[in-house]
Amino acid sequence: MSTVSLEQIQSPADLRRLSRRELKELADQLRQFVLESVSRTGGHLSSNLGTVELTIALHHVFNTPDDRLVWDVGHQSYPHKILTGRREAMARLRQAGGISGFPKRSESEYDAFGTAHSSTSISAVLGMAVASRNTGRTQRQHIAVIGDGAMTAGMAFEALNNAGVTPDVNVLVVLNDNDMSISPPVGALNHYLARLMSGGFYAAAKNVGKAVLQRVPPVLELARRVEGHAKGLVSPATLFEELGFNYVGPIDGHDLDALIPTLENLRELGGLQFLHVVTRKGQGYKLAEADPVLYHGPGKFDPAVGIQKSTTAARPTFTQVFGQWLCDMAQADTRLFGITPAMREGSGMVEFERRFPNRYFDVGIAEQHALTFAAGLACEGQKPVVAIYSTFLQRAYDQLIHDVALQNLDVTLALDRAGIVGADGATHAGNYDIAYLRCVPNMVIATPSDENEARLLLSTCFQHPGPASVRYPRGAGRGAEIVAGLETVPVGKGVVRRNGQGIAILAFGTLLTAALQAGEQLNATVVDMRFVKPIDAELILELARNHEAFVSIEEGAVMGGAGSAVQECLNAHGVLVPMLQLGLPDRFIDHGDQAAILSSLGLDAPGIVAAVEARWGKRSVGGNVVQLVRQSS
Amino acid sequence: MSTVSLEQIQSPADLRRLSRRELKELADQLRQFVLESVSRTGGHLSSNLGTVELTIALHHVFNTPDDRLVWDVGHQSYPHKILTGRREAMARLRQAGGISGFPKRSESEYDAFGTAHSSTSISAVLGMAVASRNTGRTQRQHIAVIGDGAMTAGMAFEALNNAGVTPDVNVLVVLNDNDMSISPPVGALNHYLARLMSGGFYAAAKNVGKAVLQRVPPVLELARRVEGHAKGLVSPATLFEELGFNYVGPIDGHDLDALIPTLENLRELGGLQFLHVVTRKGQGYKLAEADPVLYHGPGKFDPAVGIQKSTTAARPTFTQVFGQWLCDMAQADTRLFGITPAMREGSGMVEFERRFPNRYFDVGIAEQHALTFAAGLACEGQKPVVAIYSTFLQRAYDQLIHDVALQNLDVTLALDRAGIVGADGATHAGNYDIAYLRCVPNMVIATPSDENEARLLLSTCFQHPGPASVRYPRGAGRGAEIVAGLETVPVGKGVVRRNGQGIAILAFGTLLTAALQAGEQLNATVVDMRFVKPIDAELILELARNHEAFVSIEEGAVMGGAGSAVQECLNAHGVLVPMLQLGLPDRFIDHGDQAAILSSLGLDAPGIVAAVEARWGKRSVGGNVVQLVRQSS
Repeated sequence: MSTVSLEQIQSPADLRRLSRRELKELADQLRQFVLESVSRTGGHLSSNLGTVELTIALHHVFNTPDDRLVWDVGHQSYPHKILTGRREAMARLRQAGGISGFPKRSESEYDAFGTAHSSTSISAVLGMAVASRNTGRTQRQHIAVIGDGAMTAGMAFEALNNAGVTPDVNVLVVLNDNDMSISPPVGALNHYLARLMSGGFYAAAKNVGKAVLQRVPPVLELARRVEGHAKGLVSPATLFEELGFNYVGPIDGHDLDALIPTLENLRELGGLQFLHVVTRKGQGYKLAEADPVLYHGPGKFDPAVGIQKSTTAARPTFTQVFGQWLCDMAQADTRLFGITPAMREGSGMVEFERRFPNRYFDVGIAEQHALTFAAGLACEGQKPVVAIYSTFLQRAYDQLIHDVALQNLDVTLALDRAGIVGADGATHAGNYDIAYLRCVPNMVIATPSDENEARLLLSTCFQHPGPASVRYPRGAGRGAEIVAGLETVPVGKGVVRRNGQGIAILAFGTLLTAALQAGEQLNATVVDMRFVKPIDAELILELARNHEAFVSIEEGAVMGGAGSAVQECLNAHGVLVPMLQLGLPDRFIDHGDQAAILSSLGLDAPGIVAAVEARWGKRSVGGNVVQLVRQSS
Repeated sequence: MSTVSLEQIQSPADLRRLSRRELKELADQLRQFVLESVSRTGGHLSSNLGTVELTIALHHVFNTPDDRLVWDVGHQSYPHKILTGRREAMARLRQAGGISGFPKRSESEYDAFGTAHSSTSISAVLGMAVASRNTGRTQRQHIAVIGDGAMTAGMAFEALNNAGVTPDVNVLVVLNDNDMSISPPVGALNHYLARLMSGGFYAAAKNVGKAVLQRVPPVLELARRVEGHAKGLVSPATLFEELGFNYVGPIDGHDLDALIPTLENLRELGGLQFLHVVTRKGQGYKLAEADPVLYHGPGKFDPAVGIQKSTTAARPTFTQVFGQWLCDMAQADTRLFGITPAMREGSGMVEFERRFPNRYFDVGIAEQHALTFAAGLACEGQKPVVAIYSTFLQRAYDQLIHDVALQNLDVTLALDRAGIVGADGATHAGNYDIAYLRCVPNMVIATPSDENEARLLLSTCFQHPGPASVRYPRGAGRGAEIVAGLETVPVGKGVVRRNGQGIAILAFGTLLTAALQAGEQLNATVVDMRFVKPIDAELILELARNHEAFVSIEEGAVMGGAGSAVQECLNAHGVLVPMLQLGLPDRFIDHGDQAAILSSLGLDAPGIVAAVEARWGKRSVGGNVVQLVRQSS
């Protein structure tokens, strides 16, 4: 009976020929496709079920790709991908060689701006809009779709503040407000949005009416005056209107009959428009509606039965090791505060929040504030622990330097997702933290090699009376037995894990396991350096006396990384040792399987052996050391 | 006739004993002292003349230092310093060994939080307030004094958003609004504040009345209801009330009779309070009132005659070289856009704004937005140039990685104040950019060695079709003749400036001048490397073949710096060369004279010679080269 089929939609041009009724049919099919596709590949689900109608309406009304459409964060862009020629490519979503889980300029002309980190969209479309204005493309529209969570980041406010005084630009901000359906709102802005919503949907009609009215030039001025007067009496201007936007909404983001005419009106109006759309995460799939957090980013599952709890006890992830440690240390020390920038689940803090609600702070998507808030706590003798992904600490780099390190304040950073992150790809890469932290005075940087080391080094860095960071990768480690308790180790001291000859492999982090395997083959000494900073100069100089060459290995950028810390130490002491620096290359690394990526980069045991042999020749079999000839220039 | 004397005020406790009339007399004396003191030492003037009464009122009303008082940015804290025991120390303000130009925790217990970079104060006091709450200090007050400019940074919004949902904390945000007296407001928020002010000062009385009313518990609830109702009818809630604060103001920040009772009321109320105070930059000194920008941060001058224009033609600063280049390139290429985060004067863009107003963007104190706004422009084929201090780029580090570099967009960064900044000290240090930029794929990093090289490398980086940065120091260079025109040089290629023997000195940036002097004494080869990234591997390997040892020198952190780029290149090619890395040490460096600091760190010609001789022994006099013995482990 269906007159339309998703398979017929090759591009948004096909959408624009469909009737309202056909678009509604298409929405049902698209939602079903998203559900089935994500259940087969894993990926983001709840957010994409929430944007089906909005995506259809935007591509139906606007002339993409000439009109610029930017999806903030971008994890809600699957319907967009499906409607812009990537329906079949969804089968390899987030897999090596397949399409990205985020908008990506190199993937499609419809992906006007690559996103993944939050709250960049308004800045980006404002830049595009100014370019269009200055090159005479006065009809082009520039649309940012941004969630209510992303709206709490300071960067979004900076962009609104700047847009509000930029004349003659067409910028439409679509606020995709779905916070009401998940955990309690974390910021004052969310409360504010809730108050706007509580004003009721009747406002939608009023505002759509207003928008239409404004299209008629003769009565425009009068209407504005009347409304301006009326507003003072009955409804205060919204925060967004104070910042220079025309606020419309809230409207139902699952109702094409509300979305399409409203967007059409806003398109004709041009200028600075702000549309408040209310959607429901997981819309249309009962299980996801009921638990949008569980269905936020699931692995593969059967849509008919939903996500099943795993019955086999998996090895704990580093995130879980951190979560357990945080509770244990909080129990032991009432000065501990746990801070997360909107990553409670991802950072393993659910149990901590439950047990220590007064010392748990989800500050929203606000990394900058998170660090300086922690600095304020530390000024008063408290001991804050900020749990943050390596890639998101980039957002708080200045606060780390200027507010925490410069004042030598006692803030501990638990840096999750350090190194290769897998399916999320280059946008989430935790590749740079060693380099960007190492140059900051007073910082301690610890690189645990397994789960037990993670606990030890967390305790150690927590007890260190200054800024300290512990970086650990996504996922599980080698499966080390975790010793309970809150023991510490000496700061800045490494441990020799294998005594060999000729070559010393200095490992920073979980690649120690590969280094030990390679060490067996090479009969090399293998060291768990534990700390990038302070570097263990004493151990390095001792190793230099007893070995012919060094190999450094780290899951981080070679440029400025831990290997260079070793080399700087050697140079500072005037000691000459041939050195091979293994780590991540100087390029952005696409999404794919974590282990496969590391192997492809030579960061596994065979890769280490191959690199050593390529540099210094094949070692004799059986562990005997061939004397290395030092290369000269 | 005066009954009070500034000399008698040793601490705020002395203030609290004074009558209103005495406080007013004190204000006059304090203003005069600030004027005379700054005219003798140089420093910030306009902002400090504007905070005289506010400072007196705050210390009079609040129980500092037990109540926590944080000055955002902190360049307006001179009256605070004078009243908290540092009156005599003002004579050595910003000089080596003297007091800092900003609040500094190590300097005084009254400096609750070190500031300098903008917009950190609300986050910091919120952290302190939570600590006080959780440790039972429920009476303690926590006050952030923040300017209207600083309020536009996203970080301030993040903090307000988080504070608005934090129960049972005493946080008073004092908005020091003085934008009306300088250049046009740059953001929508400033327009909003202007609208609040245009409501007139009558509002002050109403709001103070409200505050008093709220102190009386029995009628409180009724009063609130009436007012809540009334508000909807006559005056919309302010933006700050929407975010959970009680908004009071605007009141006259130079009127102690308004300030003191209002602050007393707010102290008693506790909770989340927001006081909008209007001050005038330069207040009380006619010349500064008339031109607060000129008197923002003057050098020494005679208060009786004011700042005199220099009649001798000084060497141009790098900032001026950039400003001239920007105009010339904008004339030649209509795709050039100039972007500054609120640093028009400091970045040398006054003339550019005058000549190219449609391509000039002051985005406010919003570094994050600045970078992503530039990325949006670049997506549309424009060629944005972001002029930003090295230390402030730290605020936009994630945007640089995630929005610019990852998408390989054509954004040029003009990094001013790279390296030692002198009087502003550690908070403004441009020491880290080489290290934090070097690990980012796709980045080009140029380090011009003089004024003409700066122009050449700006043109080169501008023409490079991807992200590129040019870093140059504060102040003037060696006085190189600047060749007009827009010539470029090859990206990633250095130039040998002196042929010598034995040692090759690889210089990155303006320390080339010192390197050449040292090179004469040492008969060393001296190279202007021009680029840290891409590093000139071909030249490095050639130098390695012909020399016995390398010295790298840079005005940046050794850790992860340009020297390590050279070393990584050698290691990647398996080439062994003894290397001495000279640059900035791993500690925060206090304020002082730029040249004197560099000398004290051994970063001048004698220092280079001394370091070489300390490592490799005294070279024979007269330029003959002593064969260097390579050290072994």
